[in-house]
Amino acid sequence: MTYNEKSQRFTLDPWSSDLKVEDYERLCQEFGIKPLKPLLPMIENPPHFLRRGIIFGHRDLELILEAAKKNEPFAVMSGIKPTGDFHLGTLLTMREIIYFQKAGGLAVYCIADIEAYEDNNIPFDESRQIAIGNIADALALGLDPKRAYIYRQSKERRVKDLAYLFGRGITLSTITAIYGERHLGLYMSALIQVADILLPQLKDLGGPKPTVVPVGIDQDPHIRFARDVAHRFHEKLGFIPPSSTYHRIMRGLDGSPKMSKRNPMSYFTLNEDLESIKWKLMNAYTGGRATAKEQRELGGIPEQCCIYELCVFYFVEDDKELLDMYMKCRRGEVLCGDCKIKVVEKVIKFIEEHQRRRNRFIDTARSLIEEEDQKPSYL
Amino acid sequence: MTYNEKSQRFTLDPWSSDLKVEDYERLCQEFGIKPLKPLLPMIENPPHFLRRGIIFGHRDLELILEAAKKNEPFAVMSGIKPTGDFHLGTLLTMREIIYFQKAGGLAVYCIADIEAYEDNNIPFDESRQIAIGNIADALALGLDPKRAYIYRQSKERRVKDLAYLFGRGITLSTITAIYGERHLGLYMSALIQVADILLPQLKDLGGPKPTVVPVGIDQDPHIRFARDVAHRFHEKLGFIPPSSTYHRIMRGLDGSPKMSKRNPMSYFTLNEDLESIKWKLMNAYTGGRATAKEQRELGGIPEQCCIYELCVFYFVEDDKELLDMYMKCRRGEVLCGDCKIKVVEKVIKFIEEHQRRRNRFIDTARSLIEEEDQKPSYL
Repeated sequence: MTYNEKSQRFTLDPWSSDLKVEDYERLCQEFGIKPLKPLLPMIENPPHFLRRGIIFGHRDLELILEAAKKNEPFAVMSGIKPTGDFHLGTLLTMREIIYFQKAGGLAVYCIADIEAYEDNNIPFDESRQIAIGNIADALALGLDPKRAYIYRQSKERRVKDLAYLFGRGITLSTITAIYGERHLGLYMSALIQVADILLPQLKDLGGPKPTVVPVGIDQDPHIRFARDVAHRFHEKLGFIPPSSTYHRIMRGLDGSPKMSKRNPMSYFTLNEDLESIKWKLMNAYTGGRATAKEQRELGGIPEQCCIYELCVFYFVEDDKELLDMYMKCRRGEVLCGDCKIKVVEKVIKFIEEHQRRRNRFIDTARSLIEEEDQKPSYL
Repeated sequence: MTYNEKSQRFTLDPWSSDLKVEDYERLCQEFGIKPLKPLLPMIENPPHFLRRGIIFGHRDLELILEAAKKNEPFAVMSGIKPTGDFHLGTLLTMREIIYFQKAGGLAVYCIADIEAYEDNNIPFDESRQIAIGNIADALALGLDPKRAYIYRQSKERRVKDLAYLFGRGITLSTITAIYGERHLGLYMSALIQVADILLPQLKDLGGPKPTVVPVGIDQDPHIRFARDVAHRFHEKLGFIPPSSTYHRIMRGLDGSPKMSKRNPMSYFTLNEDLESIKWKLMNAYTGGRATAKEQRELGGIPEQCCIYELCVFYFVEDDKELLDMYMKCRRGEVLCGDCKIKVVEKVIKFIEEHQRRRNRFIDTARSLIEEEDQKPSYL
C-alpha cells in the first residue's frame, strides 16, 4: 500500500504490498468494502475461513449466496501467477474456490502467464512448466476439473482479445491511480486480468452470471477496475459487476509483516522438502515468554504467535480444538516447544498427504497443458 | 508536430499532425532520416514519385534495393485505418506498395481496425464494411493479391499476440515521448502497429527479411518504435530493423496546409461523385494573378498552385508533359481556367476508370473479408 501525495489517498498496489492488519478497517471504509459478518447467518455450515473472519469483507456477495440458494448459475474465478509452487496464500484461495465450486459454482481458474512475463520476465516455456505443478496442486486440493475451466492467459484468445476491447478510453491517470507508474506491458496484463475476471460471463461460458473473485485486500484495485469495465460494457456484453471476497493476509512465520519469497524463513510451499518445513516451523516466531518459568506463571500470548495464526488460518478446522489450544497456551499449560511439535506433526501430515495426491495428478495436469499447447499462439 | 517543452524537442504525432513542408529538412536532420537523392542512380527507371522527390527520405532503403537486385526475399508493408474511402494520400502509399511488389517484394497490407476502434471508436462491424471498399480500391489500383497478404488486425492473432510480447519494459516516458498523453488502448494499438510492421519477418511468412514501410514523415514515430523493438527482439525472433521511405504530404486543394476530412474542399476520395470532384478542382487554389491581363504579362506561379501540385504528385507521370505545363504557366500562355479544365479531364478519366475497376473487385474483396470472418476473434 502506498500513500499518494497528489490524491491524498492510499493506493492499493497489487504488485507490491506491505499492508498491515490494522489497515483493513480503514481500507474497507475508504473503498466501500462491506464487512462479511452480517452475511454469516445466511450461510449454512460456514467453513472456518468464513466463521473466523479470515474472509472479513466482500462486495456483492449476496448475489452469489442467492444464486447458490436458488440453484441459479454463478461462477467463482481466480488464478495464479505461475512463478513458483503453491504456498499458504494460494492454498487459502484454492480452498475458497473449491468451497464455492461445491456450492454449485462454475470454477474458472487462470494461469496468469502473461502477467508472469510482463511483471517478472518469466519466459512462457518456463511458466508452462511451473503451471503443470500449480494445476496438480489445485487438483490435489480438491478442485473438480469436470466443473472447472482451467487455462493459461497466453493460450486464451478471448482474454487477449477482450483486453483490446477494454483498453479503449482508459486514461493514463486512471491506470496510474490504480497501479502506479509501471510499464506498458504491465498495464496490458492488468487489462487481461480484467478480462479473466469477466471471462465466466461470456456467451461461450453460459453468458452473464454473478461471479465471485476471492482475493487478498491488496488485489482490490483489480476488482474495482473489473467492476468499472463491467459497467462500461454492460450494454454490449451484459456483464454483471463481479462480486468479491477479501481475506486477511497472514504474517510471515518469522513474525515479519508478510510471507515473502525474498525471505525464505517467512513461508513454505506445499511442495517443499519436509525437513525444511519442520525447520521453519520449529524456528517460527511465537507468543512465548522469556523463560519457561515465566510462561508457566503468566501464560503465552497466542495473539502474537505465528504458529497459532497458522492453525487459525489453515490447520485446525475444528473451533473447539482451536479454543482448547488457545486456552492451554494462555494458562501456561502447554509451552511453545511442545505446542510446536504437535503443530509440526499436523502440518507435515497434511503436506505429506498433499504431495502424494499432487504426484498422482501431475499427469492429468500435464495433459491439460498439452491439450492447450495445440491452441495457436505467438506467446 | 508538437514541441515538447520538457525535452525541448519536436515530437511527431502520427495521430494529429500539422506538419509544414519547410519542417521536412529539420526533421530529417533531427531524427536521422537520410535523403533519397543519393540513392536514385542505383534505381532503374525510378517512378515519378521517386524522381521528383515526393519520396524525399529513407531509412536503410539500401537493404531493399540490394535484396531486389539479388532476387533475395524482401517485403513491403503498409496499411490503412478503415475510417473511410481511399483518398490521394492512400493512393500514393498504394502506388509505392505496388512499385515494391513489382520489384519482387512480398506485399503485406493491414486493415488497422483495432486502431480505428481505439483511436476513432469505430465498431468492428463498421470498419469491416469500410475495409471491403478499401481492399477493392487496393486491388483496382494494381495490388496483386497473389503476392500479397491482406488482413485485419482484429483477425490476425499473431499481431495481437506480439503486441503483448513487445509491451514488456516499455516505460510510460518512452511511450508518451513518442505519442503524447493518450489513453491505454491507443498505446496498445501502437504496439499492434509495431507488430504489423514486423509481421512479414515471422517464420510463417518466410522469416526475417528486409521490409520497407512507405510512410508520411508524420508516421516516423511508428518506424522508430518498430526499429527499437526489432533490436530488442533480434535475438529471440531474428528481426531486421525495418526500412522506411518518407513522402511529402500534399497540401489541401484549397491551399490549406493539409488535406483533412474536417475540410471537405481540401481533398476528394477515389470513390467520390464525379461532379463533386470537378467542383472541388474548379475551386482549387492556384498560382493565378489578380487579373487575366496581369497573368498573361507576368505568368502564373505554379509553385503556389494546388492543381499543379496535384499533377506533380499524381496525375502527370511524364516529366516532359509536366515541364511543358510548368513553362506554359510561367510564360502566361495558359491561364488557370483552361489549365483546370484539362487537369479535371485527366483526373475524372482516372477516377472513372478506377471506379469501374473498383466495382469489379468488390466481390473479390468481400470474399477475402468473409474468409477472414471465419477466424475466431472476440473483436
